[in-house]
Amino acid sequence: MTQTDAHSSEAQLDAATVPSGSTSTTPKPRRIAVLTSGGDAPGMNAAIRAVVRAATFHGVEVVGVRRGFQGLHQGDMRLLGPRDVANIIQRGGTVLLTARSHTWRTPEGRTLGAGHLKAWGVDGLIVIGGDGSFHGAHYLQQEHGIPVIGVPGTIDNDLYGTDHTIGYFTAVETALDAVDKLRDTAASHERIFVVEVMGRHAGHIALDVAVAGGAEEVFLPEEEHPAEHIAQVVRDSAAKGKASSILIVAEGYPGGGEAVARAVEAQTGLDTRLTILGHIQRGGSPVSSDRVLASRLGEAAVLALIEGKSDIMVGRGNGGMTFTPLHETWEKSKDVSRDLYRCAKTLSV
Amino acid sequence: MTQTDAHSSEAQLDAATVPSGSTSTTPKPRRIAVLTSGGDAPGMNAAIRAVVRAATFHGVEVVGVRRGFQGLHQGDMRLLGPRDVANIIQRGGTVLLTARSHTWRTPEGRTLGAGHLKAWGVDGLIVIGGDGSFHGAHYLQQEHGIPVIGVPGTIDNDLYGTDHTIGYFTAVETALDAVDKLRDTAASHERIFVVEVMGRHAGHIALDVAVAGGAEEVFLPEEEHPAEHIAQVVRDSAAKGKASSILIVAEGYPGGGEAVARAVEAQTGLDTRLTILGHIQRGGSPVSSDRVLASRLGEAAVLALIEGKSDIMVGRGNGGMTFTPLHETWEKSKDVSRDLYRCAKTLSV
Amino acid sequence: MTQTDAHSSEAQLDAATVPSGSTSTTPKPRRIAVLTSGGDAPGMNAAIRAVVRAATFHGVEVVGVRRGFQGLHQGDMRLLGPRDVANIIQRGGTVLLTARSHTWRTPEGRTLGAGHLKAWGVDGLIVIGGDGSFHGAHYLQQEHGIPVIGVPGTIDNDLYGTDHTIGYFTAVETALDAVDKLRDTAASHERIFVVEVMGRHAGHIALDVAVAGGAEEVFLPEEEHPAEHIAQVVRDSAAKGKASSILIVAEGYPGGGEAVARAVEAQTGLDTRLTILGHIQRGGSPVSSDRVLASRLGEAAVLALIEGKSDIMVGRGNGGMTFTPLHETWEKSKDVSRDLYRCAKTLSV
Amino acid sequence: MTQTDAHSSEAQLDAATVPSGSTSTTPKPRRIAVLTSGGDAPGMNAAIRAVVRAATFHGVEVVGVRRGFQGLHQGDMRLLGPRDVANIIQRGGTVLLTARSHTWRTPEGRTLGAGHLKAWGVDGLIVIGGDGSFHGAHYLQQEHGIPVIGVPGTIDNDLYGTDHTIGYFTAVETALDAVDKLRDTAASHERIFVVEVMGRHAGHIALDVAVAGGAEEVFLPEEEHPAEHIAQVVRDSAAKGKASSILIVAEGYPGGGEAVARAVEAQTGLDTRLTILGHIQRGGSPVSSDRVLASRLGEAAVLALIEGKSDIMVGRGNGGMTFTPLHETWEKSKDVSRDLYRCAKTLSV
Repeated sequence: MTQTDAHSSEAQLDAATVPSGSTSTTPKPRRIAVLTSGGDAPGMNAAIRAVVRAATFHGVEVVGVRRGFQGLHQGDMRLLGPRDVANIIQRGGTVLLTARSHTWRTPEGRTLGAGHLKAWGVDGLIVIGGDGSFHGAHYLQQEHGIPVIGVPGTIDNDLYGTDHTIGYFTAVETALDAVDKLRDTAASHERIFVVEVMGRHAGHIALDVAVAGGAEEVFLPEEEHPAEHIAQVVRDSAAKGKASSILIVAEGYPGGGEAVARAVEAQTGLDTRLTILGHIQRGGSPVSSDRVLASRLGEAAVLALIEGKSDIMVGRGNGGMTFTPLHETWEKSKDVSRDLYRCAKTLSV
Repeated sequence: MTQTDAHSSEAQLDAATVPSGSTSTTPKPRRIAVLTSGGDAPGMNAAIRAVVRAATFHGVEVVGVRRGFQGLHQGDMRLLGPRDVANIIQRGGTVLLTARSHTWRTPEGRTLGAGHLKAWGVDGLIVIGGDGSFHGAHYLQQEHGIPVIGVPGTIDNDLYGTDHTIGYFTAVETALDAVDKLRDTAASHERIFVVEVMGRHAGHIALDVAVAGGAEEVFLPEEEHPAEHIAQVVRDSAAKGKASSILIVAEGYPGGGEAVARAVEAQTGLDTRLTILGHIQRGGSPVSSDRVLASRLGEAAVLALIEGKSDIMVGRGNGGMTFTPLHETWEKSKDVSRDLYRCAKTLSV
Repeated sequence: MTQTDAHSSEAQLDAATVPSGSTSTTPKPRRIAVLTSGGDAPGMNAAIRAVVRAATFHGVEVVGVRRGFQGLHQGDMRLLGPRDVANIIQRGGTVLLTARSHTWRTPEGRTLGAGHLKAWGVDGLIVIGGDGSFHGAHYLQQEHGIPVIGVPGTIDNDLYGTDHTIGYFTAVETALDAVDKLRDTAASHERIFVVEVMGRHAGHIALDVAVAGGAEEVFLPEEEHPAEHIAQVVRDSAAKGKASSILIVAEGYPGGGEAVARAVEAQTGLDTRLTILGHIQRGGSPVSSDRVLASRLGEAAVLALIEGKSDIMVGRGNGGMTFTPLHETWEKSKDVSRDLYRCAKTLSV
Repeated sequence: MTQTDAHSSEAQLDAATVPSGSTSTTPKPRRIAVLTSGGDAPGMNAAIRAVVRAATFHGVEVVGVRRGFQGLHQGDMRLLGPRDVANIIQRGGTVLLTARSHTWRTPEGRTLGAGHLKAWGVDGLIVIGGDGSFHGAHYLQQEHGIPVIGVPGTIDNDLYGTDHTIGYFTAVETALDAVDKLRDTAASHERIFVVEVMGRHAGHIALDVAVAGGAEEVFLPEEEHPAEHIAQVVRDSAAKGKASSILIVAEGYPGGGEAVARAVEAQTGLDTRLTILGHIQRGGSPVSSDRVLASRLGEAAVLALIEGKSDIMVGRGNGGMTFTPLHETWEKSKDVSRDLYRCAKTLSV
């Protein structure tokens, strides 16, 4: 095991394992902009703070854009100093607000946004969000030549190019807290609990919650099980002497938690309760892992712009920084760990 | 303001404000039983511990009955010493388990249970639960002359005769935590969130959560609002400059959270999200107020049996102990504080 | 048990149990000020919000004074509208800041402060803090005729005239969380843990934490125990089969936690660990009970000013509002519940 | 970035990056033992559960040894089935208890322990603990030929050969929670807070807490700063417009938190408060990352024994499993990330 933790040194830039973005010889930016886009995620504020503070440290000014690309389109922006981001590292949500923008999908909308950036003298843009948001950034770079850097901020952890995304750890913790509470009642009552957690396209949250929550079974978006199998899980569980069962279902599993709950009730007749956690998984004060990740990535994004990189996402992998071309983040996918999935099965014995 | 905190002294038993149960001159019990019944509530373990420890302190043995009245009917019981209840005060659920019993509803079932109690030499029974469970205890006393004491354990806080029930404070805290998390996202996204909390017959949880969570409106089981009023709340809120609204709905409001969410969407077209917290409100480590209440009431129940009381529920009111005939707990009702309801309205200005 | 929850009605003002403040016939105030003073307490923000919102509801403007009496002395104040206090109900600390003021202790200092209030057209002042802060308010009223209302905000709960003070519930919860964590280690390691909690003059926090944490013994400021007694507690505990002991010590116990820890080690030779929680008990998001109390009392303070009351503290007692002359809050004292103290002893059997 | 998550496959065993332990061709064990040793850490229960469940899955019996090597020496052990470890994944501490053993340091003591293992028919031992505990395991293997596998369980994260140790994430979270609470008060009061966190030999916890807590400075065991530098940090912080400063000090920094607090007060005269978190960092329900890590490593330890490995520690690194000879865990050291240290400095601008 090697422990490479060095940040974006020249040496590392040459390293084969680091997919480098396009590195130009343009002069260091004097003013950059930052926005948050898409669904909010805990730790976005920590990332904003890191961008503003790191830029200040390196003599670069920062403009904060409100409401994501919609605000960029409307020119809703203002200068941010290091004190403006004081006392936000521990807050959920995003002080820059976020929105889904329809106008940004048109070249005209993006031209307007690029105009605002140029009017403000902005030399580069940092976008904190998911792959949808990176699409928007990529077009801005392609069409208007504005350097863009993506910072992975989404609770789903489904972004190729980074081990973890900002917000993921907190979302797992929130869902796990709910499972722990249900376990108290499940153990007291001898019931079946079905818990639907977020994850439309990927089962990362569901799998971690299932392992950490000691669930009897986990249902991922990747595969559908026949109703009979679902019932068998519950029956096997009872046969092993377990008084109750907790089943974790990713939002993206066919039919969601409701389908699983219905299958259990129909097949076993047992008292089954469904909990849909929903948006509470997006909120809350970020846990330490999300704050540390956001601090590292926010700084890395500023350094990347200073070094002339563009059209890439900064991330963490193999104990070091990673730089992934933005287009790969939506073209490639990051699977859940099959190894952890197997571990979950083994430990529910 | 007087601060009467004295416990069940002779003086207090004479006090006009304390509805005393029947007090006989039977000798001090040598062995009592304890069970938990109905929906589990955080703090039940603290109450069990208090019963066992207080009884031991006063030289009385304790038999723990598993699975509530169902276990009593089946004779599923064993002696509990003070070390058996070590390290459970902080745990959610109930180590004695709980169940809903159908057999208990028949005289035959109760005769079987009474037989088990007598076979074990039990002189009195403490029932931790809600008014349904108190019904079962009342019949046992009526039909078989076994002294019974009720301890209010239910998250709903809807029991006449006590300011608060064991589990209520924790349930409110759990729901509030969810509302706080949604607020992060609501503030970042400019959305409407509808949160359904527990409370089939009473809005106690909903009202406290609404006030503590700074919600824009609360919907109690007691009154139905026309869809138009619901929409007006959201429009007024927007007109006041609020970027988002959080609406708290008690489970027992006609149509529940779904009806409110549908009304908002239909009338305003705004992006509305519904969260149904469900059974997570029953679990979790009890907060201090529930543990202190459970400790006081568990001890009080033992003292009540020793003093020869029966067919009453112990509770807290006006800063002191209260003793309420069991039948009043289901014949009378405890309303939500109209004063707090008004306060909620005022502060959502 | 009677459930009187009616708010400050004329009827209640006549009630013998409610110490009424001086009620004048002066016209309704048009502008009032609010400040937080002394040690900060969780829930102060909820109280500020309630003052601003309730005043707005009743057509009264609010001026916020920063840094307590020091800011009043310096004229550091500004108008607060209902949106200025949005999204603060869940935050620890106080957005108005607090400070200890030396200048306020002189008549000259107070004259300056009164001048600022008059210049701003302020007709009444609400002071959120402890009895030291109420002293400052009382003098302002006496010397300059400005109506003042006190709102009890201190984690220590040692104010005569109210069952609980804002911040108390959260401080207990924070200390309890620490005790729960130590119990994990104590149970695994067979050690003695001494935990010092806040409470210089009163043992309210210590006692609640001891009961809720299932501690083996609690040491209150009110009484000193010989070292031998302390050691005996630990030996008795071991003799009962307890693998470990947790001892809770109020800051104000002679010698504090260190004295107790030293006594245990000297007398028993057992591995003893001391934890001093300190200021973390002042922070954190307020629990629901503190937010509800703060919301009620903030509103009550505004209503009291509108009704022409002055020189009193609003509080809660016997399930209703209470009004206590400010001078009584420092002349009289509120003892810990002897009943709960006895309960703690009984349950540590 | 490559995502190697495959577990101990044949292919991986050959990989150059995986330091393999000695792999013998002895037959699969039929019964193994597990113990926890040294300071307890949150997640140890999850690791015990994983060992028992994974072994059961693979047809291997498990004997649990109580009180670490002391219990092994005394023969305090019993069989554990999968239901014996139900409902413990979420609990702090260790159900097997832990102790520091003096007798184990002598060959005679170890011979006695080895005898007990052989009498119970145990073919291999899994030790969950730190490098001190691994020493004990190593000697057992050397002297008595019993296969041993180490699982890294310590909050300090100072073990060479794994990215993280079980308990580390929870300890950081607990300390961070305290810092967040102090921040509320610091922001309200304009004070200096010094927080001493655990870490006698390594500053891992201190550094993560400093970054995630947004601290103004962090003091690691690795380097001592002159009192003047410490004061300068506080003065610089004030000059930047920060109302308050939070300084994080690792337990192993020369003089600890007290030395730093004293230096600040002496040099600046500012109101400075010291909080020593102590053993609360060892307790609490483990966060998800610790539970997932413990689940993976517990299973990996069982598989390692089955595959005939011995005298190694299982760990995680570069996104996959790692196997490190036990002696390397105390001969080599794992430094804090200099990169993260630099990041902390940059973001405190």
